[in-house]
Amino acid sequence: MQTKILLDEDQMPKAWYNILADLPTPLDPPLHPGTGKPLVPEDLAQIFPMELIMQEMSPKRMIDIPSEVQDVLRLWRPSPLYRAHRLEKQLKTPAHIYYKYEGVSPPGSHKPNTAVPQAYYNMKAGIERIATETGAGQWGSALAFATQLFGLECTVYMVRASYTQKPYRKSMMQVWGAECIPSPSTRTKSGSAVLQKDPETPGSLGIAISEAVEDAATHSNTNYSLGSVLNHVCLHQTVTGLESKEQLATVDEYPDVVIGCLGGGSNFAGISFPFAGDKLKGTHRDTDIIAVEPASCPKLTKGVYTYDYGDVAGLTPLLKMFTLGHDFIPPSIHAGGLRYHGASPIDSKLIHDGIMRAVSYHQSEVFDAAQTFARTEGIIIAPETSHAAKAAIDEALKCKKSGEAKTILFNCSGHGHFDMSAFDAYYAKQLVDYEYPEKLIRESLARLPKIPGA
Amino acid sequence: MQTKILLDEDQMPKAWYNILADLPTPLDPPLHPGTGKPLVPEDLAQIFPMELIMQEMSPKRMIDIPSEVQDVLRLWRPSPLYRAHRLEKQLKTPAHIYYKYEGVSPPGSHKPNTAVPQAYYNMKAGIERIATETGAGQWGSALAFATQLFGLECTVYMVRASYTQKPYRKSMMQVWGAECIPSPSTRTKSGSAVLQKDPETPGSLGIAISEAVEDAATHSNTNYSLGSVLNHVCLHQTVTGLESKEQLATVDEYPDVVIGCLGGGSNFAGISFPFAGDKLKGTHRDTDIIAVEPASCPKLTKGVYTYDYGDVAGLTPLLKMFTLGHDFIPPSIHAGGLRYHGASPIDSKLIHDGIMRAVSYHQSEVFDAAQTFARTEGIIIAPETSHAAKAAIDEALKCKKSGEAKTILFNCSGHGHFDMSAFDAYYAKQLVDYEYPEKLIRESLARLPKIPGA
Repeated sequence: MQTKILLDEDQMPKAWYNILADLPTPLDPPLHPGTGKPLVPEDLAQIFPMELIMQEMSPKRMIDIPSEVQDVLRLWRPSPLYRAHRLEKQLKTPAHIYYKYEGVSPPGSHKPNTAVPQAYYNMKAGIERIATETGAGQWGSALAFATQLFGLECTVYMVRASYTQKPYRKSMMQVWGAECIPSPSTRTKSGSAVLQKDPETPGSLGIAISEAVEDAATHSNTNYSLGSVLNHVCLHQTVTGLESKEQLATVDEYPDVVIGCLGGGSNFAGISFPFAGDKLKGTHRDTDIIAVEPASCPKLTKGVYTYDYGDVAGLTPLLKMFTLGHDFIPPSIHAGGLRYHGASPIDSKLIHDGIMRAVSYHQSEVFDAAQTFARTEGIIIAPETSHAAKAAIDEALKCKKSGEAKTILFNCSGHGHFDMSAFDAYYAKQLVDYEYPEKLIRESLARLPKIPGA
Repeated sequence: MQTKILLDEDQMPKAWYNILADLPTPLDPPLHPGTGKPLVPEDLAQIFPMELIMQEMSPKRMIDIPSEVQDVLRLWRPSPLYRAHRLEKQLKTPAHIYYKYEGVSPPGSHKPNTAVPQAYYNMKAGIERIATETGAGQWGSALAFATQLFGLECTVYMVRASYTQKPYRKSMMQVWGAECIPSPSTRTKSGSAVLQKDPETPGSLGIAISEAVEDAATHSNTNYSLGSVLNHVCLHQTVTGLESKEQLATVDEYPDVVIGCLGGGSNFAGISFPFAGDKLKGTHRDTDIIAVEPASCPKLTKGVYTYDYGDVAGLTPLLKMFTLGHDFIPPSIHAGGLRYHGASPIDSKLIHDGIMRAVSYHQSEVFDAAQTFARTEGIIIAPETSHAAKAAIDEALKCKKSGEAKTILFNCSGHGHFDMSAFDAYYAKQLVDYEYPEKLIRESLARLPKIPGA
């Protein structure tokens, strides 16, 4: 009874899959926040290296992974694909449940799949330091790891509330040589301005983004890096879907259902794009591709598909995406990585076009799923990942009713070793299932930006 | 450039290696603490299942791993063997450094290698609950994981100081359905007695052992389980050495140096016994096998080889081993898993007979090694594991001087995700390098037990 499907190192993908090449109609372009005109590469050159800007807009279907990047990815890739025999048995389902386990990376999630190439292209471009923001610390620690291996410095602006309450991701960054600064800080004008108004502010991801972008824009040796949303980030994550397809093929399987949780959208993009591509090309028309979001931050199921900013202050390009409004502040659920107001433009378009769909869950049912998963498959998964596990369990239970032996694949995107306080809250019955914040969403959507010049 | 050497699931060892079969002279027997006579199986039957008691004394060279145990081990085994290319490059050494990575198990260390078969044999014997003790929680969480998968209840007596200061291992136990009780507790007579004397006591491993043994001895449905020291525990850990030998053979290598850290001795036994067996049989006479201990708990380098108790209260059998005296309390270093006064009788005999040797390090140089390892190989390892990494680095640096291209293997026994506060102390320059506690050791050795009836 095979449990894990492993690939040898030489079976690791040599190229990323760029779904832009297979979209039936082109993506609506990102717009300059000042002029409202479509962005040109030069608009981004101040904070990104040209190789990444080209990937952001590339029409090429397969984009080679540099060998120096492959050398680092091999520290944990190809990652294992598991058949969840014990979970299936517990659910008494005829479904075959598979999960791709990304928690084996040193920082413990899928994030280094893009942190490594981003660090590499910046190093190649002669950049000496990268600035970024992080919420709970998952992305910041992944970038600290990646920059360390390519000899770059790294500055992480970490939302002050998390910096204080969840200090151990900060400790990881320090082990990997990065500088981690509570945001807002006096390092930047934007941070100082916020502190002047409210010295006790807990900070927010929107403020931290502003600080990191300002840091990059004002230092010639420094670039900015983003851990999700953008096309090139989704591109880098496709190693998970490409490997999964290869691994499933060794046991003559192809998924009927593909599932991932969605915060900014890169983890979901990674597992799903190679299968969505097959669907677009018509070779597998019936694959059910499901993005899972928290009920308290329901951009896909309750938001609108329109142009909006990526940050609170409105400094980023305008992106066409599902959004709850760029100044929507979601309730404080434990799945911090899913608390973002928007979704990657490619994910958004594919959901809008009906190629993929979305579901949402409340956090207590998500933690129930995490407990079931830990007690059958053994692995303690992150709250974000638990959203995907919950959807996989629900699909498997539908199979139990219908008698169908569907093949279900989900992206098990990270372990929960730095989230144990969330499990403590679960067992103390302190988890709050926030209602859909209808009024907040309505108000926030009323403040959607007008496109300049339109 | 190959980074990881993986084995397929069907290459996982089907039998454990029992080095008792290859010892040139037999092990001195454990003695009954009351009579001073060699133990007979019946002496242990009140708290251990007969299959484990038989393994403890078996003369058989290879002992089959039950298929139900293999099914669980396959959740993470065979574990990867890494070639530390980046570390070698950083050290500029001609040595080949390999590490066996046990941090991929769900609880994050080598401990479940024995927790799983122990839970299985107890389940087969009709036992419904297992009681055990844990210090920092590594063993308690491994047994919680294993008992959950075999449908047993689990009660863990956790040293109160750790229960309060490092709460997240306790949280893991809860996720896996175990009951975790701060020790001393009012559940047992021995715990109550300690609390009556000192209600504010931080507890100790010695007290927690007494509570778990008493719990098992006073409940007919309950057995006791130990995470190191005993022969059957060392036996179960040999999967790591057996796999490593197989993995090295795929690249035509055999280690010149084998290294593991030593607390109770099972992790070191696991990686080293298959190679020590070759040394005893004369096929590889020159292998240098090194146990690494903390300078503040130097039983191998400053203790004596004699009969002593396994616990503070003197309730366990007398074991012939290297010891600092059963009531020696080591300074509070961060490598909690290495703070034990004795060493497994088999490890002790092999070190005493010159088949293996021991070295010791202070904790600040050990954390330097952990940082070097994290910044080259990417993995943040546990403080215990870092002792082995430090010794591997030192051996590789010797090779740099001598120009020898030795093959060095070490057991990378666990990740440090639950030890980040120790790294914080390291960066805050708060780590204390305790002197050898000469006076404490001398006093404690003066209290070594007399063998009853001798």
